[in-house]
Amino acid sequence: MIFLNEKEIKSAVTLKEMMDTIEEAFDTFRSGEFYMPERINVEHKNKNMLYMPCFTKDMIGTKILSLFPENQEKKLPLIYGLMMLNDYETGHPLAILDAQTLTALRTGAVGGVGMRHFAYPDSERVGVVGCGVQGFHQILYACDLRPIKHIYLFDAFNKDLADYIKRLNQALAPKNPEITICNDTVELLNKSQIVITTSPATEPVLPNRPELLEGKCFIAVGSWKPNMRELPDAIWQVVDQVYTELPYACEESGDLSQPLADGILTMDRVKYMGDYLAKKSAGETIQLGKTRYFKSVGMGLFDLTTADLIYKKALTKGIGQKINL
Amino acid sequence: MIFLNEKEIKSAVTLKEMMDTIEEAFDTFRSGEFYMPERINVEHKNKNMLYMPCFTKDMIGTKILSLFPENQEKKLPLIYGLMMLNDYETGHPLAILDAQTLTALRTGAVGGVGMRHFAYPDSERVGVVGCGVQGFHQILYACDLRPIKHIYLFDAFNKDLADYIKRLNQALAPKNPEITICNDTVELLNKSQIVITTSPATEPVLPNRPELLEGKCFIAVGSWKPNMRELPDAIWQVVDQVYTELPYACEESGDLSQPLADGILTMDRVKYMGDYLAKKSAGETIQLGKTRYFKSVGMGLFDLTTADLIYKKALTKGIGQKINL
Repeated sequence: MIFLNEKEIKSAVTLKEMMDTIEEAFDTFRSGEFYMPERINVEHKNKNMLYMPCFTKDMIGTKILSLFPENQEKKLPLIYGLMMLNDYETGHPLAILDAQTLTALRTGAVGGVGMRHFAYPDSERVGVVGCGVQGFHQILYACDLRPIKHIYLFDAFNKDLADYIKRLNQALAPKNPEITICNDTVELLNKSQIVITTSPATEPVLPNRPELLEGKCFIAVGSWKPNMRELPDAIWQVVDQVYTELPYACEESGDLSQPLADGILTMDRVKYMGDYLAKKSAGETIQLGKTRYFKSVGMGLFDLTTADLIYKKALTKGIGQKINL
Repeated sequence: MIFLNEKEIKSAVTLKEMMDTIEEAFDTFRSGEFYMPERINVEHKNKNMLYMPCFTKDMIGTKILSLFPENQEKKLPLIYGLMMLNDYETGHPLAILDAQTLTALRTGAVGGVGMRHFAYPDSERVGVVGCGVQGFHQILYACDLRPIKHIYLFDAFNKDLADYIKRLNQALAPKNPEITICNDTVELLNKSQIVITTSPATEPVLPNRPELLEGKCFIAVGSWKPNMRELPDAIWQVVDQVYTELPYACEESGDLSQPLADGILTMDRVKYMGDYLAKKSAGETIQLGKTRYFKSVGMGLFDLTTADLIYKKALTKGIGQKINL
């Protein structure tokens, strides 16, 4: 049995391998060859333990997260977690991975798949709204995929981003893109070709002005609850359709559920990334329109398939802390 | 964060400390100062993953077991598992323990608490029906508690017990009690003062003869499902009451649910070990009768409190595999 921490996970896989695995997971999702029951939430005195089991035909995984809202006051991460892998044939525990790193890296990879297919190939300017761990990893994927020269940051909480930028520079070396903090999202929109939103906002973080949104590639990651919202109604004036992962996203994310409830968005404009990828690999041409929009909510299947990849790559490379079970 | 395997767990705690902690857990159970939701079972293609979360006021624990019935054909353990401990204040993962060892050691400790209070102090002869890992650990506790000179074994599956006896001798050294394999449970009953049943039987494993049961101390551990049964109806002719852990045992265990359904047992004869311990520590005298019967089904609270003990003892003694999270 092995344990993999942040450093070990990141040295086991490349971003390209992560995105390729996410594309395979979209295929597995379409095939139905998996079992992913609903997330299990156990709550006691405002302390939440979340259990996310998933089975593919090769592996069994459980992501276990603690979610303690009161950690905010203690300036500690709200979420800690571990991902456990069990052998599909016998159930024997195989590996435990740091789930914070796994989540950040796989969420980045899902956004990365969006950028891989929807961002214009010559995109040099990426903007990120919400400078947390998710935004950080989305930037890594953007820079891996496109010839990014400028990164624009905006965070509504007026955080000191000095350390964040320092860590970004380290992670992106030797590419050295220019990193600029924007005063508002109007400035960020004006400057960016790819716009990634990874904020905890409950009101749209982008201005409700279609002329500012037009022609860009939007990767929206933040809104994962019905009361969370990042993109304004104006987005529906400039996109033909939104791509997402699964029908449940329309209930789960306020970015979809709210415009659907308001009648601004209709279900015929909601498309699935798995279908897009399948059509594309079958050689079909798919019209995307000038403005592109991928709304990601994630799913346990992504955690399992990427953890499986990381585990196998770590074994091959001899990476990981050996546990004597 | 630390990982504790079988050897590390066993060197961290004494059997006495385990039993003391189980007695404290009975007290916690009575106080209601804990949260133990129902066991969560996720099943896919006859592969079961079980999640057993529990919160005390000091610690959060989750026992995670894989239960693969098809492992039997592969001559592999049916169950593998890990116990995860999370910090009560922040949710941060603190430790992972081998759950097979934890389960065996804590189930033994619960049976041990039964023997501590119900077995006659001068008991020298213990019989065990069902020679698996549970029976093994019950014997360790019996020998820790009473001046055991003779151990009688019976296993209905005609297993080769040579290795089992060898391991018992190693674990019990330097005490060297005599170990005898019995031809049937009549012989075992005739010879034993303490009788422990830890079999997977669905029919009573002991003969339905009250004269053979009388005057002994029974610790029944095997039956944990309504269709499982170890003790015969005749037990109700020789005991005044049965002690168990919690009301749910009357639904869960066939040793209780079946005689209750048949009207052979009535609820006024079902007593709770926690009440017994509370009365005893308050100085009350409790009439037990000549024949004593403790039926154990276990509960997640026992896993958590003993894992917490083991973790803290391991930290103090510098035992465990350090995981760099």
